[in-house]
Amino acid sequence: MQVDFKYTKSLFSLPKNIIYLDGNSLGPPTKATAKSVETLIKEKWAKLLIRGWNSDEWINKPKHVGNRIARLIGAQKDTVIVGDTLSIKTFQALFSALNLQQKRKIILSDKGNFPSDLYIAQGLIKTLRSDCKLHIVETEEVLSTLTDDIAVLFLTEVDYRTGRKHDMKKLTRRAKELGIVTVWDLAHSTGVLPVKLKEWDVDFAVGCTYKYLNGGPGSPAFLYVAPKHIKTTDNIIKGWLGHSSPFSFNDEYFPAKGIERMQIGTPPVIATTSLEASLDILDTIDVRCIREQSIKLTELFISETMKNCPMLELASPRDPEERGAHVAFHFEQGYAVIQCLIENGVIGDFRMPNLMRFGINPLFIDGNDVLTASKILTDIMENKKWDKAYFKSKSFVT
Amino acid sequence: MQVDFKYTKSLFSLPKNIIYLDGNSLGPPTKATAKSVETLIKEKWAKLLIRGWNSDEWINKPKHVGNRIARLIGAQKDTVIVGDTLSIKTFQALFSALNLQQKRKIILSDKGNFPSDLYIAQGLIKTLRSDCKLHIVETEEVLSTLTDDIAVLFLTEVDYRTGRKHDMKKLTRRAKELGIVTVWDLAHSTGVLPVKLKEWDVDFAVGCTYKYLNGGPGSPAFLYVAPKHIKTTDNIIKGWLGHSSPFSFNDEYFPAKGIERMQIGTPPVIATTSLEASLDILDTIDVRCIREQSIKLTELFISETMKNCPMLELASPRDPEERGAHVAFHFEQGYAVIQCLIENGVIGDFRMPNLMRFGINPLFIDGNDVLTASKILTDIMENKKWDKAYFKSKSFVT
Repeated sequence: MQVDFKYTKSLFSLPKNIIYLDGNSLGPPTKATAKSVETLIKEKWAKLLIRGWNSDEWINKPKHVGNRIARLIGAQKDTVIVGDTLSIKTFQALFSALNLQQKRKIILSDKGNFPSDLYIAQGLIKTLRSDCKLHIVETEEVLSTLTDDIAVLFLTEVDYRTGRKHDMKKLTRRAKELGIVTVWDLAHSTGVLPVKLKEWDVDFAVGCTYKYLNGGPGSPAFLYVAPKHIKTTDNIIKGWLGHSSPFSFNDEYFPAKGIERMQIGTPPVIATTSLEASLDILDTIDVRCIREQSIKLTELFISETMKNCPMLELASPRDPEERGAHVAFHFEQGYAVIQCLIENGVIGDFRMPNLMRFGINPLFIDGNDVLTASKILTDIMENKKWDKAYFKSKSFVT
Repeated sequence: MQVDFKYTKSLFSLPKNIIYLDGNSLGPPTKATAKSVETLIKEKWAKLLIRGWNSDEWINKPKHVGNRIARLIGAQKDTVIVGDTLSIKTFQALFSALNLQQKRKIILSDKGNFPSDLYIAQGLIKTLRSDCKLHIVETEEVLSTLTDDIAVLFLTEVDYRTGRKHDMKKLTRRAKELGIVTVWDLAHSTGVLPVKLKEWDVDFAVGCTYKYLNGGPGSPAFLYVAPKHIKTTDNIIKGWLGHSSPFSFNDEYFPAKGIERMQIGTPPVIATTSLEASLDILDTIDVRCIREQSIKLTELFISETMKNCPMLELASPRDPEERGAHVAFHFEQGYAVIQCLIENGVIGDFRMPNLMRFGINPLFIDGNDVLTASKILTDIMENKKWDKAYFKSKSFVT
């Protein structure tokens, strides 16, 4: 159960003199990533050419890598498939979830959900299920709003802004009692929170791999379907890789029996290879250990920063059980502070209107990093260094 | 207008003693590809980290690379977007096309269309437009079947089996006269046939980049929307990158004004970088020159092979104007012949029930390759070498 985080840190490729507190937006590459991808290109693609598709390695990558992610989210074997983007996997999951609920008409989500998830829901309703409605409630009201006329509970476990974490187990159990189908977005959970999809009886889950899984910019997403639903789940986008026999070139579509039915087009081999380099590290680790270390580090960062920077208001829950792996503070000039931090070697990011966000991935961030980052932040705050900072860039991705 | 094909051939990374006649399934990497991707990982991702998303380079890659592809298919600037897979781009295009035709109910396609395209159409009808029907006619009957009650003409220009080529200009013109919206799949055209989307007034087009564009296994697809439709086209999958302002994290979806509205999720930066290495070569070339050389080479391969292998029946049209860049022969033991060819250093592929397929990309296949391949094939046929071949592998991807 012990993890040598000093060792895992040594496996990542990070610039010297940079403390990277934005792995919750885009994880860094491992030291092995470039070589892995180079080997794929030079030794596989260039030498095998089309024959690369004839081996199990490429064509079953979405399922093989899905199984490696399954372990991280408490899912059974052959219930997770990798590919496409989180938006597309969400579109598929939500469509499948609604299909299980022909009589109910409400998708319940909350204000803590990521906007793109809400867009996907709005879009699905507009074009496919105009009989349905999207209800968006305050985060604290989700549990009390659950009733037996709700079709689908559609939430992101961890709020991309504040790090506030839903009680996924409790909400899923209550949803079950009321016959509500659950779709969970694990974008800010996978690889850092010990999610238990099987044990908690989640119906559908989706996630991305470029945050705590360090897959790289635009690396593929994943989709989980509970075993009881797989055989009946209809893939709304019927591309050839979801076919039971894609290479028979049958003119009619027959869905694959297993989770492969949720595939769409040709698997992104290069992008997935980049992801695998990071999974090589995660494969050997129990996510509970990452979580334990993550709590230690976020606690340290919060307590140091709150002690030394009284002008910052903690936006994340103070109780570690109620938050994920990133920490956020409100500050009116937060944008300027973040720019100033970046100039001083600490990369965090900013979210409108006044949120400074710091992601702490224990795989490559240690106690010294956290203390140093907090000290640099303190120096900036105490000396109002942000006042002079030049705000040339914008912070982008969640 | 002259192209030094000896030079372009020197830019690709191909194994010695292999003649690769399956670039129509999966193009080979260039010699620069691995280094390009390595540089992206080591110099950009590892050093810029999240800041990579703040520059124009990553976030606008789908449009920048789309513009490079636009040149190859006769499309205007800012009408092509790169991303996702061909299945997904087809799903979006066909949905958009049907939206323009609320009163008409027929999608017309032909038996030469790629099965996945037909699956996408069947799926769309099933879940979204149950008022519509898919009519699949014989290839030769497409033109005479066009009537003013057809909503969408949905074809792949080049048949993935025989290489038979539609007269895209003529069919599109006739469709226009009848008020039919056109969706063309350019999977086997892009980079090798001088398609003119603007001049021919095509409405929507899609294509993949792993064939004649050599993007790599599972490299992203592209979607073209005619300028007149862009502003009104509804993206069926409303992910955040199609939003007019994805990083404002607005709770409501407002589509981007331009072709960006057809984006869905986070752009696949690594996979697209691999594609760009090959576009560096294509950028400097007029596709008409490739086509000219392609006709020379396919003519040579056909004439030599027909002369020396009378037992093979040409499956492709004899007239070069009626075929694309690959050539196919019928032979009952075709599967065995292909295995035997591969063992003798010539990589072609097999399609059920009896089709041997040879793709000739002039960028890396020259006259000597064609003659040598035809000689080896002749030797196998004359000496019935295929009879003893051990058939251990299957040929996969289109």
